[in-house]
Amino acid sequence: MALIVQKYGGTSVGTPERIQKVADRVIRTKRAGNQVIVVVSAMAGKTDELLRLASEISSSPDPREMDVLLATGEQVSIALLSMAIREGGLPSVSYLGNQAGILTDSKYGRARIRDIRAEAMKQDLDDGKVVVLAGFQGIDGANNITTLGRGGSDTTAVAIAAALHADVCEIYTDVEGVFTTDPNIYHKARKIKRISYDEMLEMSSMGAKVLQIRSVEFAKKYNVSLHVRSSFSDLPGTIVCQEDEAMENVLVSGVTYNKNEAKITIKKIPDRPGIAARVFSEISKNGIVVDMIIQTPSSKGGHANLAFTVPITDYPKALKMIQKLAKELEAGEVVGNEDVAKVSIIGVGMRSHTSVASRMFVALAGEGVNIIMISTSEIKISCLIDAKYTELAVRALHDAFELDKSPREESL
Amino acid sequence: MALIVQKYGGTSVGTPERIQKVADRVIRTKRAGNQVIVVVSAMAGKTDELLRLASEISSSPDPREMDVLLATGEQVSIALLSMAIREGGLPSVSYLGNQAGILTDSKYGRARIRDIRAEAMKQDLDDGKVVVLAGFQGIDGANNITTLGRGGSDTTAVAIAAALHADVCEIYTDVEGVFTTDPNIYHKARKIKRISYDEMLEMSSMGAKVLQIRSVEFAKKYNVSLHVRSSFSDLPGTIVCQEDEAMENVLVSGVTYNKNEAKITIKKIPDRPGIAARVFSEISKNGIVVDMIIQTPSSKGGHANLAFTVPITDYPKALKMIQKLAKELEAGEVVGNEDVAKVSIIGVGMRSHTSVASRMFVALAGEGVNIIMISTSEIKISCLIDAKYTELAVRALHDAFELDKSPREESL
Repeated sequence: MALIVQKYGGTSVGTPERIQKVADRVIRTKRAGNQVIVVVSAMAGKTDELLRLASEISSSPDPREMDVLLATGEQVSIALLSMAIREGGLPSVSYLGNQAGILTDSKYGRARIRDIRAEAMKQDLDDGKVVVLAGFQGIDGANNITTLGRGGSDTTAVAIAAALHADVCEIYTDVEGVFTTDPNIYHKARKIKRISYDEMLEMSSMGAKVLQIRSVEFAKKYNVSLHVRSSFSDLPGTIVCQEDEAMENVLVSGVTYNKNEAKITIKKIPDRPGIAARVFSEISKNGIVVDMIIQTPSSKGGHANLAFTVPITDYPKALKMIQKLAKELEAGEVVGNEDVAKVSIIGVGMRSHTSVASRMFVALAGEGVNIIMISTSEIKISCLIDAKYTELAVRALHDAFELDKSPREESL
Repeated sequence: MALIVQKYGGTSVGTPERIQKVADRVIRTKRAGNQVIVVVSAMAGKTDELLRLASEISSSPDPREMDVLLATGEQVSIALLSMAIREGGLPSVSYLGNQAGILTDSKYGRARIRDIRAEAMKQDLDDGKVVVLAGFQGIDGANNITTLGRGGSDTTAVAIAAALHADVCEIYTDVEGVFTTDPNIYHKARKIKRISYDEMLEMSSMGAKVLQIRSVEFAKKYNVSLHVRSSFSDLPGTIVCQEDEAMENVLVSGVTYNKNEAKITIKKIPDRPGIAARVFSEISKNGIVVDMIIQTPSSKGGHANLAFTVPITDYPKALKMIQKLAKELEAGEVVGNEDVAKVSIIGVGMRSHTSVASRMFVALAGEGVNIIMISTSEIKISCLIDAKYTELAVRALHDAFELDKSPREESL
């Protein structure tokens, strides 16, 4: 008998009718001879409704009470889903974070799971019951309710799958799986059948919104196979799992883009030891995460141009700060640019194959797309380009690496 | 330093603005040098919304999951109120039923409180924090969420006041207190300053919706003084407390009415031992509570007429059942009447004064109101009358016992 963890997001349980559909799928899975734990998010729109209520009370609501408030969203979902499963004729029991023994630290709003005391759930599973578990929530050592932050239900699902050594953790969502690129940008985008944890992590951090980074990290750490699939169809989705040889035969598995960064350049900065350190420690002190960095010698001797990107939400704050700092450092002009985008190619095959970078640059050059900055990791190459070329660049790269064809799956 | 328990109903916390007002009052009470525990209900309308959701999933939702669902209502309220109190500058901490150690039996939907483990709350109070406690909910021995049924928040407030030996338990509601009769029926209705537990119990069971019976029983058992008052004003309301001499000097403290009963008469029932027992055991087997009963000899020898009242919600079911039973018993016709009302006078003074009943009957006769049935207890006399005379009868009785005057309070 297999143990299957299924996680359904807010859209999948957004109405009583949809909850009914989820119950039907759970019942089918159970009747097929499996043990089933279902992890659910709050009904779509519910969390926003609660946030709005809180904002009417306080502009900076107490974090502990915020978690007490938000945790009700999942509580409603588990009660309704468990009712629906029972209505369908199977024994079912709902579990809140505290009942499931999901122990976290005390960082309200972004707590991390420390331990899971799953004995009670295990007993209910062994007794033939479906377990319906509230995602996103836990308790700290003092029995305070905590929440895990955005995408926390994915993390709950993976954590429980790890704790109970589930055979697979199915993540049901409103997309059919992970695609080679955004299907809204390129119709040739293809659903990927299997992808490694590391590739998925790069995809997630690049803005592919299918899975939350932390849940993928968790899955990798505990070697939990994820199956990302649609709650509106029975088609198989994408398996996220450990890297294997077949994956390495593919140079590039996906093309992503990110329009949520902005570039800041400090011109004619004195080219002395410690200056770059000063700039970036100042930025990080303000809680801003820098992504790409490039330093180029200025035409005038003894000076350099220093450019970097920051999240667009932090851009106004960062720009102000840097302008002030540039004066102190007796640097030149500070230039900001919001009209940039980052396109990236991702693939574990890069590690063992050369010429991937040059093939990328050639493809972009072939479309007349100028590269502003470049950054690389072991399995990813990113180029910052003019934002207006984003879609063009994505399509060119998708074609250049023939992602519409399915080499990886053929070789399986 | 006094310990004050304040309980706010759903209307009092129905919107963020009203929650703000409740927070203001809590803060005033705390700043006046008291320790404060606030017990809150779900925001008005919330429970109905949740019930509707459940009804869309199942016509008979699982009781355990129903309690998981309903408990979210109070959880939202405590989070928002605690935020508002903190926004007002006072330390505050919310408590769910399980966090407050409110242990109940496992009767979902109508659980009874067995014990309260209030150490954590006590500590927070001693640390100068306001404690905001979810009403209506608890946990059973296996950490399942339970709810206490309608009016359960009142019960929570009284129970916590008893457990922590609070100086007073203030019940804030949308009325100004307990009145001598329904002010909507008679403009001369007067707010009662002090009323005994027993009188309040009779008032509650008669349909005065201010306080739930169970909470009054609890208050009486543990001698907790209740102060029923309006959350929309600062006027004192009604104190519900132990009987004292001043109360006994008043014959009647209030007039109530109840239009939610119907009368069933079995005519010509064989007048044999065991027949009445058979009828009423049959009724109670069906979970129906009989209120008034009267048996009169029929004109024909060896037969009697048996009449009784049942809640109007059970009337159709009861009538069907009784019609069937009457055939079996070879009794005569079964006659039902929904157009009846019960008017009652209540007062602890009745115990030591005669002639109260006759004064009641004279008053009703004076208005031409025919009495169909009569029932009495130590501190209450009820008459079943034609429903169309209800308001007339209430006003006549209010006048007859001069309830618009305030003898009790004068003698205090």
